[in-house]
Amino acid sequence: MSVIKPSLAKGTRDFTPVEMVKRNFIYDTIKTVFKKYGYAEIQTPSFENLSTLTGKYGDEGDKLIFKILNSGDYLGKIDEQLLTTRNSQLATSKLSEKALRYDLTVPFARYVVMHQNEITLPFKRFQVQPVWRADRPQKGRYREFYQCDVDVVGSESLLNEAEFILIYDEALSKLGLKDFTIKINNRKILSGIAEIIGKPDLIIDMTVAIDKLDKIGLDGVSKELLERGFTEVDLEKLRPVILLEGTNEEKLASLKSVLSASEIGLKGIAEIEQVFEYVNLLNSSLITHRSKLELDITLARGLNYYTGCIFEVKTNEVAMGSIGGGGRYDDLTGMFGLKGLTGVGVSFGADRIYDVLEELNLFPASSEVGTKVLISNFDAEAEKYALPILQQFRNAGISAELYPASAKLKKQMAYADAKKIPYVVLIGGDEIASGELTFKNMETGEQKKLSASAILELLLKG
Amino acid sequence: MSVIKPSLAKGTRDFTPVEMVKRNFIYDTIKTVFKKYGYAEIQTPSFENLSTLTGKYGDEGDKLIFKILNSGDYLGKIDEQLLTTRNSQLATSKLSEKALRYDLTVPFARYVVMHQNEITLPFKRFQVQPVWRADRPQKGRYREFYQCDVDVVGSESLLNEAEFILIYDEALSKLGLKDFTIKINNRKILSGIAEIIGKPDLIIDMTVAIDKLDKIGLDGVSKELLERGFTEVDLEKLRPVILLEGTNEEKLASLKSVLSASEIGLKGIAEIEQVFEYVNLLNSSLITHRSKLELDITLARGLNYYTGCIFEVKTNEVAMGSIGGGGRYDDLTGMFGLKGLTGVGVSFGADRIYDVLEELNLFPASSEVGTKVLISNFDAEAEKYALPILQQFRNAGISAELYPASAKLKKQMAYADAKKIPYVVLIGGDEIASGELTFKNMETGEQKKLSASAILELLLKG
Repeated sequence: MSVIKPSLAKGTRDFTPVEMVKRNFIYDTIKTVFKKYGYAEIQTPSFENLSTLTGKYGDEGDKLIFKILNSGDYLGKIDEQLLTTRNSQLATSKLSEKALRYDLTVPFARYVVMHQNEITLPFKRFQVQPVWRADRPQKGRYREFYQCDVDVVGSESLLNEAEFILIYDEALSKLGLKDFTIKINNRKILSGIAEIIGKPDLIIDMTVAIDKLDKIGLDGVSKELLERGFTEVDLEKLRPVILLEGTNEEKLASLKSVLSASEIGLKGIAEIEQVFEYVNLLNSSLITHRSKLELDITLARGLNYYTGCIFEVKTNEVAMGSIGGGGRYDDLTGMFGLKGLTGVGVSFGADRIYDVLEELNLFPASSEVGTKVLISNFDAEAEKYALPILQQFRNAGISAELYPASAKLKKQMAYADAKKIPYVVLIGGDEIASGELTFKNMETGEQKKLSASAILELLLKG
Repeated sequence: MSVIKPSLAKGTRDFTPVEMVKRNFIYDTIKTVFKKYGYAEIQTPSFENLSTLTGKYGDEGDKLIFKILNSGDYLGKIDEQLLTTRNSQLATSKLSEKALRYDLTVPFARYVVMHQNEITLPFKRFQVQPVWRADRPQKGRYREFYQCDVDVVGSESLLNEAEFILIYDEALSKLGLKDFTIKINNRKILSGIAEIIGKPDLIIDMTVAIDKLDKIGLDGVSKELLERGFTEVDLEKLRPVILLEGTNEEKLASLKSVLSASEIGLKGIAEIEQVFEYVNLLNSSLITHRSKLELDITLARGLNYYTGCIFEVKTNEVAMGSIGGGGRYDDLTGMFGLKGLTGVGVSFGADRIYDVLEELNLFPASSEVGTKVLISNFDAEAEKYALPILQQFRNAGISAELYPASAKLKKQMAYADAKKIPYVVLIGGDEIASGELTFKNMETGEQKKLSASAILELLLKG
């Protein structure tokens, strides 16, 4: 076997021990909150039948799905003509019948349909698994990355929407974020606005344009709206809505007057009001804390998909795109033949949250500690003396190591340093004779002579 | 988009909430033990460059690697002749440059080589991730399954081997298994035996045959040895070794006399003795408990690979193949150009352990509980009354749900039953008037009238 200089596949990453501890801190924190709100974990397979995935993500999405080559003599069965015309797109369906998961939503819809007889509605599930996309890799964009989704299907109650706001607030606060905004909008309000202007068919064009307000400003949005078929008269009507300011209550009041003639628009406003009422009853500080929960009618986010409330979360502490989002979709499982099942869900952008916590230095110091104590190893006698102590520590639940060979002190200390082990127990001839071991705090450099039991007590405390 | 009746890709599985809780119980238990022994988690990408994987698992293994079809116009770049000759095997390297992880060992070797400048040896890592094999699916054999590997590289100390025995013992005991055997052997003892017989070149044939003792008995093994080039005279010498009985000490004593002329054989015995001495110092009950740790010289397990100690674990409570195994390999990273790095590791067969725990009914009842309490919802007034109580429970760390819509009692109870929610709080007009809520234990059916705070106290205790 020839020796190859190893490399990673493009767009993929190894996760080192330090990175894994930090990633697990994020996942564990988020999962704990999901569970507290009654959501249960499921997992779906890494690959699905190609037919389950194609046609769900648009033409561009289809191209980004990683297809798995059929096994065995896959060329033997393929049509001669297909090969000679070299039409890769047509050939794919013959060469591949499986593909890697592209998101967690379509596999979840498949899951709900296949398990419909054993599921009791409402079905509240979360799912934290990697997805794969054949995107061109660039900074912060990978071909393998994790999604953290939480969804409920089969419940129309707006309590679910309210609870997602609380889930965002609680999870992000527990991760250490202090200043973030949970934005909310409703597709029905956007429909109402398009209706009032008299251009209901242009709702997508309208929302795509006003969604860019942050980036291109009012002039840019106006220009784009004119290009997309709106008139100056329309813009006159739109402008006050786009530039809506004030508290959520003030915005809702303005909208109510603007949308007074639109049934669907008023329905959207009523939904937002109901969500706010639920939030207020669950956690009134979220309502009083003005910057945390914000009605933003420029928020669109995959509008084709959402039918009710739409969410997006942004941190105000560092420059970063959204760190989460979601909404309600009235027909999740229709693509697999199960009609009329409503769903609502949000997701956390774990990779972006990782970057934010790193930049703000928010990972708890304890999250970097694996092994808590290293026992030194200078010779066979000391090793023999150390082994029962080592196991005494472990039996008390302390993560402990004995350096596995006699080695120079410097080398053993370097090992403790590299692994960020906070305590080292040194055992030499004196220690064996007296039973008083040297206990070193690696951060302060402080050393004490203590019995093994006294050391264990300190380890259990600290 | 046409509606397709959804199905799973062959050989893959969904994991339901109940299954996920049980799987996480296994992974969490094993990971906690790994960490206590100083092992740190890493993860590697789901797919690697094809060249990283091919040639590492033998010809049969290569065929079972799932290859990922190149993106874009992959047929356009392929050689005309290759297409017309329809040689699938040759074409694969042109159609695919990435492949799904087949095991955790080769990616780990790649990881060590690529990260060698940042790793401090000995490097103790564990890894729990899925792997994929294009095997023909059958009962208990899947195309996607998890491996749980724990390895240390860069340490020759036999303390590592001893600690793996303790890790097996502790993890399996914590999972609830009561009667299992950790078998140990040493490649050098097998080499010694082949040397004594005068057939060192036939060591593989010898071990493949005697490894089957359990299945085909002594007669079967003898027959196979004769077919594989051994003589009746050889069998005379082999028989007492194969049938070695008694305590580990008795077996070692017999082997010492049989292998007295083989340097390598004696080295293997000394290694086993050293491992036993370490185990004894760490946990003497493992040495005195005769059936738990057993020297079994018929144990071979991928002999080509291992160079020192070899491990295998079997449960004695149900009929099941091995639930774990591993050993020492002296040249893990040589395939990627980094020579002379010794490694030793073991793995846990999580899927088989799952089946064993299921069959023995060993999953803790608590492991099935997600949501702890459901609050009923009969009308808007009761819902409004319930919301602050719901959040009071959650703020105390209790996983709690409010049924998200007004519904009949029967329906809400069926929901609690389906989710195995152990407690339900019923809130009707009487409860709102008195502040005494009805607290129902779903298992016993018992109902009490209690204040919300008194209920919270009970929930925190139970």
